[in-house]
Amino acid sequence: MAGSTFGTIFRITTWGESHGKGIGVVIDGCPAGLPLSEADIQPYLDRRKPGQSRFTTKRNESDTAEILSGVFEGKTTGTPISIMIRNADQHSGDYSNICDKYRPGHADFCFDSKYGFRDYRGGGRSSGRETIGRVAAGAVAAVLLRELGITVTAYTRSIGPVSIETFDAEEMSRNKLYMPDAAACEKASAYLDNCIAEQNSSGGTIECVVSGMPAGAGDPVFDKLDANLAKAIMSIGSVKGFEIGDGFRVAEAVGSENNDAFTIDKNGKITKLTNHAGGILGGISDGSDIVLRCACKPTPSISRPQQTVNSNGEPVEMIIKGRHDPIIVPRAVVVVEAMTAIVLADALLSGMSARMDSVRKVWGR
Amino acid sequence: MAGSTFGTIFRITTWGESHGKGIGVVIDGCPAGLPLSEADIQPYLDRRKPGQSRFTTKRNESDTAEILSGVFEGKTTGTPISIMIRNADQHSGDYSNICDKYRPGHADFCFDSKYGFRDYRGGGRSSGRETIGRVAAGAVAAVLLRELGITVTAYTRSIGPVSIETFDAEEMSRNKLYMPDAAACEKASAYLDNCIAEQNSSGGTIECVVSGMPAGAGDPVFDKLDANLAKAIMSIGSVKGFEIGDGFRVAEAVGSENNDAFTIDKNGKITKLTNHAGGILGGISDGSDIVLRCACKPTPSISRPQQTVNSNGEPVEMIIKGRHDPIIVPRAVVVVEAMTAIVLADALLSGMSARMDSVRKVWGR
Amino acid sequence: MAGSTFGTIFRITTWGESHGKGIGVVIDGCPAGLPLSEADIQPYLDRRKPGQSRFTTKRNESDTAEILSGVFEGKTTGTPISIMIRNADQHSGDYSNICDKYRPGHADFCFDSKYGFRDYRGGGRSSGRETIGRVAAGAVAAVLLRELGITVTAYTRSIGPVSIETFDAEEMSRNKLYMPDAAACEKASAYLDNCIAEQNSSGGTIECVVSGMPAGAGDPVFDKLDANLAKAIMSIGSVKGFEIGDGFRVAEAVGSENNDAFTIDKNGKITKLTNHAGGILGGISDGSDIVLRCACKPTPSISRPQQTVNSNGEPVEMIIKGRHDPIIVPRAVVVVEAMTAIVLADALLSGMSARMDSVRKVWGR
Amino acid sequence: MAGSTFGTIFRITTWGESHGKGIGVVIDGCPAGLPLSEADIQPYLDRRKPGQSRFTTKRNESDTAEILSGVFEGKTTGTPISIMIRNADQHSGDYSNICDKYRPGHADFCFDSKYGFRDYRGGGRSSGRETIGRVAAGAVAAVLLRELGITVTAYTRSIGPVSIETFDAEEMSRNKLYMPDAAACEKASAYLDNCIAEQNSSGGTIECVVSGMPAGAGDPVFDKLDANLAKAIMSIGSVKGFEIGDGFRVAEAVGSENNDAFTIDKNGKITKLTNHAGGILGGISDGSDIVLRCACKPTPSISRPQQTVNSNGEPVEMIIKGRHDPIIVPRAVVVVEAMTAIVLADALLSGMSARMDSVRKVWGR
Repeated sequence: MAGSTFGTIFRITTWGESHGKGIGVVIDGCPAGLPLSEADIQPYLDRRKPGQSRFTTKRNESDTAEILSGVFEGKTTGTPISIMIRNADQHSGDYSNICDKYRPGHADFCFDSKYGFRDYRGGGRSSGRETIGRVAAGAVAAVLLRELGITVTAYTRSIGPVSIETFDAEEMSRNKLYMPDAAACEKASAYLDNCIAEQNSSGGTIECVVSGMPAGAGDPVFDKLDANLAKAIMSIGSVKGFEIGDGFRVAEAVGSENNDAFTIDKNGKITKLTNHAGGILGGISDGSDIVLRCACKPTPSISRPQQTVNSNGEPVEMIIKGRHDPIIVPRAVVVVEAMTAIVLADALLSGMSARMDSVRKVWGR
Repeated sequence: MAGSTFGTIFRITTWGESHGKGIGVVIDGCPAGLPLSEADIQPYLDRRKPGQSRFTTKRNESDTAEILSGVFEGKTTGTPISIMIRNADQHSGDYSNICDKYRPGHADFCFDSKYGFRDYRGGGRSSGRETIGRVAAGAVAAVLLRELGITVTAYTRSIGPVSIETFDAEEMSRNKLYMPDAAACEKASAYLDNCIAEQNSSGGTIECVVSGMPAGAGDPVFDKLDANLAKAIMSIGSVKGFEIGDGFRVAEAVGSENNDAFTIDKNGKITKLTNHAGGILGGISDGSDIVLRCACKPTPSISRPQQTVNSNGEPVEMIIKGRHDPIIVPRAVVVVEAMTAIVLADALLSGMSARMDSVRKVWGR
Repeated sequence: MAGSTFGTIFRITTWGESHGKGIGVVIDGCPAGLPLSEADIQPYLDRRKPGQSRFTTKRNESDTAEILSGVFEGKTTGTPISIMIRNADQHSGDYSNICDKYRPGHADFCFDSKYGFRDYRGGGRSSGRETIGRVAAGAVAAVLLRELGITVTAYTRSIGPVSIETFDAEEMSRNKLYMPDAAACEKASAYLDNCIAEQNSSGGTIECVVSGMPAGAGDPVFDKLDANLAKAIMSIGSVKGFEIGDGFRVAEAVGSENNDAFTIDKNGKITKLTNHAGGILGGISDGSDIVLRCACKPTPSISRPQQTVNSNGEPVEMIIKGRHDPIIVPRAVVVVEAMTAIVLADALLSGMSARMDSVRKVWGR
Repeated sequence: MAGSTFGTIFRITTWGESHGKGIGVVIDGCPAGLPLSEADIQPYLDRRKPGQSRFTTKRNESDTAEILSGVFEGKTTGTPISIMIRNADQHSGDYSNICDKYRPGHADFCFDSKYGFRDYRGGGRSSGRETIGRVAAGAVAAVLLRELGITVTAYTRSIGPVSIETFDAEEMSRNKLYMPDAAACEKASAYLDNCIAEQNSSGGTIECVVSGMPAGAGDPVFDKLDANLAKAIMSIGSVKGFEIGDGFRVAEAVGSENNDAFTIDKNGKITKLTNHAGGILGGISDGSDIVLRCACKPTPSISRPQQTVNSNGEPVEMIIKGRHDPIIVPRAVVVVEAMTAIVLADALLSGMSARMDSVRKVWGR
């Protein structure tokens, strides 16, 4: 399998390259009867769109979603939802001088090794534009989750050495770095300005919180909810680390601290006193908030001269032209949110047959 | 899908519970003609076997593998390889006093939420014994990789606050903590003795290095090699974080440091001067060593009294009896190695049809 | 994928060869809370067991099922159900004289072509014994269907030139040819005696009827219910044709005859006046009985001398020794029933998420 | 899974409805380096296009394929090939009078049962237009097969009571009924004219022959080559029966006739004296021609008044307006060819890892 499909029941297939005719996604397995229109999808695409601030590429794309199938009279029909976004502002010429050189930190050399051949225009399928299909599908998943009372929220947690110290939900959507802390955002902006001045780029981290998730979603062995989230998030280009709940900090913890005691809330519902686990135990949601984090590497396309080799195996110097983000994090925030929503929607739909009493309920027997 | 199957072409399905009749795995898609016998599998199982040191549970299991199918006259036949390990030393009685209580840090509550029902004997399917099937399958994958010149080596990187500072390959297999640093091992042992004395448990980290991997394995979108590794490793019970190459450190790096320059080695082969990427770029192996790391939480079963609730939603105190590891890391090392081997074998087999010239070569056209 | 797994949600993986240690199946995705024991499975295995009459091989196997996992306190747990059947009466020696000869009508040559290698003992994985795992899994599916009010019944429709002319449900289980027509059974027995006398073998057809199926199961495109049934039945060794409802007869029909008019039954339920469609329209069950048929070829193992070639490409004469059925049909009846039950169980479980209102119902939102 | 995806390695996902914006397909897993352009696809689409003769619907569609991704500089890149065909001539108004009535022989009632909801315009997803995506993908598969020396040819074998008696390859592409027998074509045309006059429709059969197939493709258990062909062909709307080789005739055959003796051809290659098996033994290709056949029901849309019920469960008479084919067979011929090509391409690509020596060959180890 060439790996452009993700999910078991809520299953998405993406297609398209950076400098081809467009980008798209087919969602198969979305239940019938969900109210849906382009207006649900566009705000998600707008959040990852280039050109939002001085910290994102100047490529000019409206990234307008068109729903081609699967929706009738304002509702999903249960059949595949095909969504397409045409490419517009392609400067393929920018790449002609690097078509036989392997950009450091990029997949160019690996593509040649695998396929004997590559689409050298802006990374082809390895471009960040590939995530457009994921974001469109994630918007649909988010609509489904919202109907079930579940919300998914991602934001920038750190940029280079600057981490958030407070959490202000309104601030998060106000600034273009998607940082829920105005002071941190200001420091991060200064840091990024300095990166740009030095023809350099910066890494950062993204955090995502899911609230309203019912207990009982996810599977106990390979398809653990956290394992599927890890795959989903690590499949986003530039992500090099993933963690859930306390994540890497558990390595230095002891059991008596790390265990979350169960308790009863004021409504008589079973809950946990703490949430070191990040909302998942044994691969299955426990009803607490799901909390995950990931680390993104600095954008590999930097405009200073770099040493590399070409496809003839000769050492060469290269200068990458074109329009590149000095940091990928703010635009990746919505991609993390989208992939998280897709995994949760899939787990909820796949898990419907876990018990005989649910089977009887649905089939009226 | 209930999620007991993993992989696309080299595909494994595990079964079995902690206190059932046994544990097993079916491997479908292993190529024909690979020399294989139980002697290839047993050493892997022995590494995860209980009772190896004072830091592992006293449960007494020989964990002997029996190959039931798929091997004929010492070679794989291309048909499913079924491997079974009978359970022996089951103290199910140990669990009768906790059958209606939800152990903190365990999946008990989630199982009840999902299935309306749980096998309360030792965690059932969520037990660490489930990994026996993975390890047996990983041993087969390792044989396959070895035939292609690829080796996978995992070891303990840290236990609680104690990290390795040197790397001594021989030491690694000499001590029962699988730490490649004798001094660190000594410190870690003292730390664990203290945990035991305090009826507590410890977390830690595991590192895994793959050498000899050819460039060109893995897929560019959802089935990125690192994404599949992340899923594989995060699906191991107790793992809460995963990273590849520099991992979370990339968040504070700048592009000019993080980019690995391509160069030519003395044999004229394209390679990288550094390996921040951990051997994978754009989801595809680049021919450098693959380096990954994960964090394991402290064993949730500790013998001090803990607050929890029972299945009637009443607060109760519980004391967990039974035989439990004060740390899971040393026994999880071989599970990480096994899952890594499985992902790599699958990527290599799945990737065979990436180019028309390979298709022609195999079909003789 | 090596193709030993079948199904999406109710998913089975079989393993084992004719002359290996045993045969088995792992069922993943069976809902929790289904009452199940070996006593539900054994009667199905007994129906396909050898040695039931003079028309089946004399190989002496008790074919006793052992449930190894997935059942606790008499109910399924929602985790994999592993079932094993040990081989007992293996006369591998019978095959030593044919190990390098390609038996006509068998897969020997194809195995060598594919794997470069074959298990020559009784066909290895291509043996009819492979169906034991399917039958065990089908028995579990049948239990699930019965809970939902659905029954699956297969029987012999014809043997060589002898077809049933009446339908007597009791007779069907009384005679060892599984023919629901005593007179036809008598004629068929005489025909088979003649085949045996002539060292020959006979083909035949099997019919399967499903009653109690709700409308709305199956998918409209590739996973049409009839398409999945076709794959399931055609995957049984020796089956060369499959049809649903009127099947091949529709080719000569006109629309006004073939269309089944909808009507209202006495309970006010929508039903059809006729059932040319065989219970499936557009790939989805319509609530009528599902009726399917398949054709089995004559057993290729016949004891008269046959011309063939050996693996060196030399023409040779061969005589097949061993114990072979003069007809496969009576023993294949339960395999058809099992595969049908598996497909239906899978369609019902997979289809639970087709509508938002079902999603809400199951997740209590 | 909602079932709009087919295949394991050469994997297609179709989308689109009869009266939506368009129809499309995404092909994932096509090897890199295959020469491909719209000119390879259009001739296949033209063969299934409406309006070719008086025996096909008058709906006026150019059915022009646009390749949106996966092809660069005239060759496939190994990444998803997305192909779209815009709908043009939609007379949705034709359906307003039947939107709450269940057309006999159609999926309307089943859609309502499954989804609680249907797209009543021309059958929505159940329309014959859904096959456009299959045909476009099949054209790509055919290009791949041609590179390997394999050709797939389907044609009309019978229309109502009129069967071909000779085989004239040129005639086949000359007449619009795709019958390789001019005399039969003439008789069939007269028969169809009569059907039209009587406001009725006709069934028929299609045959497909594959030549040049290497031995060794397909898997021995569930993914038998014939089982996958059966699913592929039975998933085409209106197909009610499928057979391979001698098909249903084997039921009356004896083993000594039905077994195909192996022999050596003049080039020293192992072959079979006869081909009752239709090119597949034990689920694996044997190197002979693959021969399959299927039966299509009469078009259910006929213009005479029919009895049915509406969605309120009331008996009503209905008259179906719109533009309908009196027979589906001639337009389904290319769909059968396409689906056959897709299954074969998938089997060849999936089967590349069957042996260790192939694995070594491809990975250069």
